[in-house]
Amino acid sequence: MAGKISIEKRILFENDKLAEQIRQKLMAKKIVSLNLVSSPGSGKTSLLEKTLAGLGNKLNFALIAGDVQTENDANRLAKAGAKIVRPIVTGGACHLDARMVSRVLDELSLDGVDLLFIENVGNLVCPSNFDLGEDMKVVLISTTEGDDKPLKYPSMFRRSAAMVINKIDLMGFSDFDLSRVKENALKINGNLRIFELSCRTGQGLQSWFDWLLMLVAQAKV
Amino acid sequence: MAGKISIEKRILFENDKLAEQIRQKLMAKKIVSLNLVSSPGSGKTSLLEKTLAGLGNKLNFALIAGDVQTENDANRLAKAGAKIVRPIVTGGACHLDARMVSRVLDELSLDGVDLLFIENVGNLVCPSNFDLGEDMKVVLISTTEGDDKPLKYPSMFRRSAAMVINKIDLMGFSDFDLSRVKENALKINGNLRIFELSCRTGQGLQSWFDWLLMLVAQAKV
Repeated sequence: MAGKISIEKRILFENDKLAEQIRQKLMAKKIVSLNLVSSPGSGKTSLLEKTLAGLGNKLNFALIAGDVQTENDANRLAKAGAKIVRPIVTGGACHLDARMVSRVLDELSLDGVDLLFIENVGNLVCPSNFDLGEDMKVVLISTTEGDDKPLKYPSMFRRSAAMVINKIDLMGFSDFDLSRVKENALKINGNLRIFELSCRTGQGLQSWFDWLLMLVAQAKV
Repeated sequence: MAGKISIEKRILFENDKLAEQIRQKLMAKKIVSLNLVSSPGSGKTSLLEKTLAGLGNKLNFALIAGDVQTENDANRLAKAGAKIVRPIVTGGACHLDARMVSRVLDELSLDGVDLLFIENVGNLVCPSNFDLGEDMKVVLISTTEGDDKPLKYPSMFRRSAAMVINKIDLMGFSDFDLSRVKENALKINGNLRIFELSCRTGQGLQSWFDWLLMLVAQAKV
């Protein structure tokens, strides 16, 4: 197993080096970049669809949609009006890595882009280890998943700057407790910025939009 | 990367060898074993709680609950009346492997056990590669996750013998289409046995129970 560990370390080292190059490149262009992570089905693509609809006339977006096997998410985002959108099909791999993202970014014209979203593979474990060169990770959780998720998958919540709680319109259909999930998440990461919203009803989306606008404004300074 | 691939192959080879030993041991004791896989929050632990409540007076269960960081699930199952229940905390690893399961099984007295459930880590990608010596994998999906999951995570659905669609009481709150998810799943695996149920309302649980009873009866022959 020693061989395995050292190879894993080398892979992560190579990944982090490349991620840092991506970060420098994006910073030079004053592009805010967010790495969106969650379980399968928490609503990453839905949140991006709503964000395109709500802010598409104010911000220029670039989107990279990672998926194990299909290009469904990228297709949904193109339909939702995204002009710059690219799929990454990992072919079985359980997370995106900096190499995959770097290749796609090399092919994209990023001039004029304000905000880059990287939608990671739906997986609450593995993507936490891989820096993609983003400014921050945003972890999505939905009210149908259970409020103990931050305790059960702490690494992802520790490494995220913000947590979006989606599907708040479905609360009351389970024993999900909003204050408990926030308390659990803040135990893991006291700096977590928290948003409560429903992509279906639109409730709570405005403060998410406001935060994105603020991040973009800060990056331009 | 060649080094990485050969080490991965060796790890899987060692895993499969150990899994086969587990399988022989369980078969010799006529114990049916199911490896329960899903996204985080689909309801694996809830399904096991309901199964204990519904069949606890008919079958002797042993349960192994895998988790990245906590023992929450094993504690829930003990509360639900499980006599033989053990946690496996993977300490960050994204799936159970045969070595972890083998160690726990060595410590358990399995005499008189009819049915062993192994609740895997919540992850729709990585656990698909690791044989734990189970008779079959059962993949759980919930109606709040989106009906394209079988297409997006095909490996898990290909390697499962049964698919449980949970939270059918929450249909109608999203564009989840029951016939579409079944069609998508059967495209990947035409032999998939499908159950539609709600752990919350109890709807559909009886046919799941009947199937388990049948598996146990078959194993005794």
